Amino acid sequence: MRIFICEMIGTAMLLLLGNGVNCNVSLNKSGQKGGGTVQTGLAWGLAVLLPAFIFGKTTGAHFNPAVTLALAVEGSVKTSDIPYYLLGQFIGAFIGAAIVILLFYDHFKATDDPSVKLGCFATGGTIRNTFLNFCSEFVCGFVLLFAIKGIGQVSGADKVGLNYLLVYAIIVSIGMSLGGLTGYAMNPARDFGPRLAYAVLPVPGKGDADWGYAWIPVVAPVLGGIAAVLLYSVIPFA
Amino acid sequence: MRIFICEMIGTAMLLLLGNGVNCNVSLNKSGQKGGGTVQTGLAWGLAVLLPAFIFGKTTGAHFNPAVTLALAVEGSVKTSDIPYYLLGQFIGAFIGAAIVILLFYDHFKATDDPSVKLGCFATGGTIRNTFLNFCSEFVCGFVLLFAIKGIGQVSGADKVGLNYLLVYAIIVSIGMSLGGLTGYAMNPARDFGPRLAYAVLPVPGKGDADWGYAWIPVVAPVLGGIAAVLLYSVIPFA
Amino acid sequence: MRIFICEMIGTAMLLLLGNGVNCNVSLNKSGQKGGGTVQTGLAWGLAVLLPAFIFGKTTGAHFNPAVTLALAVEGSVKTSDIPYYLLGQFIGAFIGAAIVILLFYDHFKATDDPSVKLGCFATGGTIRNTFLNFCSEFVCGFVLLFAIKGIGQVSGADKVGLNYLLVYAIIVSIGMSLGGLTGYAMNPARDFGPRLAYAVLPVPGKGDADWGYAWIPVVAPVLGGIAAVLLYSVIPFA
Amino acid sequence: MRIFICEMIGTAMLLLLGNGVNCNVSLNKSGQKGGGTVQTGLAWGLAVLLPAFIFGKTTGAHFNPAVTLALAVEGSVKTSDIPYYLLGQFIGAFIGAAIVILLFYDHFKATDDPSVKLGCFATGGTIRNTFLNFCSEFVCGFVLLFAIKGIGQVSGADKVGLNYLLVYAIIVSIGMSLGGLTGYAMNPARDFGPRLAYAVLPVPGKGDADWGYAWIPVVAPVLGGIAAVLLYSVIPFA
Repeated sequence: MRIFICEMIGTAMLLLLGNGVNCNVSLNKSGQKGGGTVQTGLAWGLAVLLPAFIFGKTTGAHFNPAVTLALAVEGSVKTSDIPYYLLGQFIGAFIGAAIVILLFYDHFKATDDPSVKLGCFATGGTIRNTFLNFCSEFVCGFVLLFAIKGIGQVSGADKVGLNYLLVYAIIVSIGMSLGGLTGYAMNPARDFGPRLAYAVLPVPGKGDADWGYAWIPVVAPVLGGIAAVLLYSVIPFA
Repeated sequence: MRIFICEMIGTAMLLLLGNGVNCNVSLNKSGQKGGGTVQTGLAWGLAVLLPAFIFGKTTGAHFNPAVTLALAVEGSVKTSDIPYYLLGQFIGAFIGAAIVILLFYDHFKATDDPSVKLGCFATGGTIRNTFLNFCSEFVCGFVLLFAIKGIGQVSGADKVGLNYLLVYAIIVSIGMSLGGLTGYAMNPARDFGPRLAYAVLPVPGKGDADWGYAWIPVVAPVLGGIAAVLLYSVIPFA
Repeated sequence: MRIFICEMIGTAMLLLLGNGVNCNVSLNKSGQKGGGTVQTGLAWGLAVLLPAFIFGKTTGAHFNPAVTLALAVEGSVKTSDIPYYLLGQFIGAFIGAAIVILLFYDHFKATDDPSVKLGCFATGGTIRNTFLNFCSEFVCGFVLLFAIKGIGQVSGADKVGLNYLLVYAIIVSIGMSLGGLTGYAMNPARDFGPRLAYAVLPVPGKGDADWGYAWIPVVAPVLGGIAAVLLYSVIPFA
Repeated sequence: MRIFICEMIGTAMLLLLGNGVNCNVSLNKSGQKGGGTVQTGLAWGLAVLLPAFIFGKTTGAHFNPAVTLALAVEGSVKTSDIPYYLLGQFIGAFIGAAIVILLFYDHFKATDDPSVKLGCFATGGTIRNTFLNFCSEFVCGFVLLFAIKGIGQVSGADKVGLNYLLVYAIIVSIGMSLGGLTGYAMNPARDFGPRLAYAVLPVPGKGDADWGYAWIPVVAPVLGGIAAVLLYSVIPFA
């Protein structure tokens, strides 16, 4: 129950701040419209950092089924805990997106293009190509899990909280380097929860939720993450 | 008295640097005009960070009545100290804004639009809607206090000062993700003090101080902050 | 063998993320086209930071023949280890660039200008001048090694991983301050590996690989790095 | 002698990287032209950070006569050491600027406007007003020294090197918040050394060195810094 609550609140905070920055820089009448990709890159990193340092000690601060499942494959998450993690993540992602819809309600009304509105919540390939879009999310998920595991190589970082700054760095890095391909979902809950919120909640002037694409950010990051922990486990670290 | 002095100087520094960056990127003839929202986001974070690490050990470095009152509700600020905190914060905010008016005096003269000048000091909804603007400041205040409380979960951060970097991260995060809604006042003193300075001091070519809006950044962040510490207190942290 | 594997994977990660951000901000149809030099500066710093903290404890995380050779001159890398370092670095750089070619394949197709595509992989002088271009890469290599050595002056940084944040700062600093001259290769593998990948792999619509310039980012950073460790060794540090 | 050498090399590095970013974002044909004020703000912070962590343990890493003199007033720098500090700082600043002139030689040739070239080296008021320009540099120097002193309040920061990150934060903060007024020299050596290099070395197509302004960034930051340490000494810190 502790896992469910903490993952839910943490993932809600992640999506509030993450979907928030997307709206903040792209919706009409926002005071920060046009903030650009440096702002989105940094802000998504912070959107992970805040709930990560709050809930890290309690649940490990996954907020991401790809993290939970990859660590379960590796054996560092108990199988019986998985449902609590995943449920909290998906419900939290939905809640975070719902709060964003409320806060930016007038700004959605002031914006015409439905694809801009969808882009505040859900990811998609900038050039549609199932294989390459899948590869993009696979590689993003791979780097994410490989680097998260690698934090364990930094002796003493967790004694002062510097490990959380490295989590922030990982998110910003992947986003800034590879985000222009498919929006670096890297996380089934991050994409599915807000996409569902967009689909079922009253976003003014919304269009299609592009469900045909939705399986890629669900499947690819999980497989990429699992591949990463498997490779990580055979590297001859000192 | 120590609390009053430190909160006053710290809040003056916060507004000097915070109102400063607003002027710096928006007034004509400034060498950094057009710096954009990444600059304002980072600079406001630093505007909190500097006085925070200087005065943190002495007074807790609130600089914000929402912080003081939420922590008082929680019981971690003595009731008898509250007046010293609040007085220092409001006076300091006024002083910081006043120094900014002096330093940028010629740049105010070189800028015509009164709303740009007001925007250097006071916040406002980018789309006026009392309920949604209130929600925005409530949520910003909520996230601020929830995350500040959450720093306590990071074992050892305060042994090396990393807790202050997390404070910086919180400010930048909220600003970059939600700042386009109402300018993320999150702080009654940050909005009221400079608004008063703008109203009563000789800012060249100034217009109305928009007092009709002023209650929102005073009331909403305090209620949001109190809600956050109450929620925080019932979360089953490990 | 451990050195070879770790340097190869780490350098592949460096180039995946480094060449990645170049593609991300410059290729048509990328969702982050136009991200600008702040993004490339930060992202290259992170591209070094991630593999640095993962492999730092095991191999020192060179990912750069200039680092390996300068430290060998100084005596802190065993001569017998040099081939493993260099081979891993060049092969890894090629692999990283190859993954980028795959991921951005459609975006290369959507971009006409061959010089933009080459610029995603290889560096070059923005004004061609063999002497001055050589000086630029010499100075970049010098500052890189001098500052890396200087991290050793920061007592306790390696106890919590803060030394890695300083590595990040060094890369970002050189890039933001001097990168407009020759693209701050600073690293023979970083330039040669991707240039070779560009030349031999099927990048759609590619042009010449500009091999005439290729010796500068190979030779100059190594000499600059060696000069730096020699100067560093005679400074009367306390 | 140790002080002279370390301050000279450190200040040369500061100006190489600091004047470097100015050239990098403003000279024609630079690959990073138009990088903007976020880039200059971050890069000047890093330009201080790099030599600061390298030489901090040995000399305190002043690189700035305002720091040296303010700390001398306070009594934490020996009077007999002052000449070595100042001489190293001014000579180092000249050397750093000279290297920048060499590296960007062709880019100066490609740029017509002499005021852009001067702006790479020397500061000036964006609106000329002796009193207000003086105030700007006084306040910048004040905040610089007050915050540097304040780092001493952060228990344990110097045990892991986090104090250097705070130095970086201070520089970036002042630059981003107040830099549009007079270019935040904050440092007599930072302005005088490069201005002299610009005046006496062969910068292609250069104009006047604006010596009439040069006394402000020499005098004002020193007085501001001294005022800061005096105020700091009477604050009732816990």
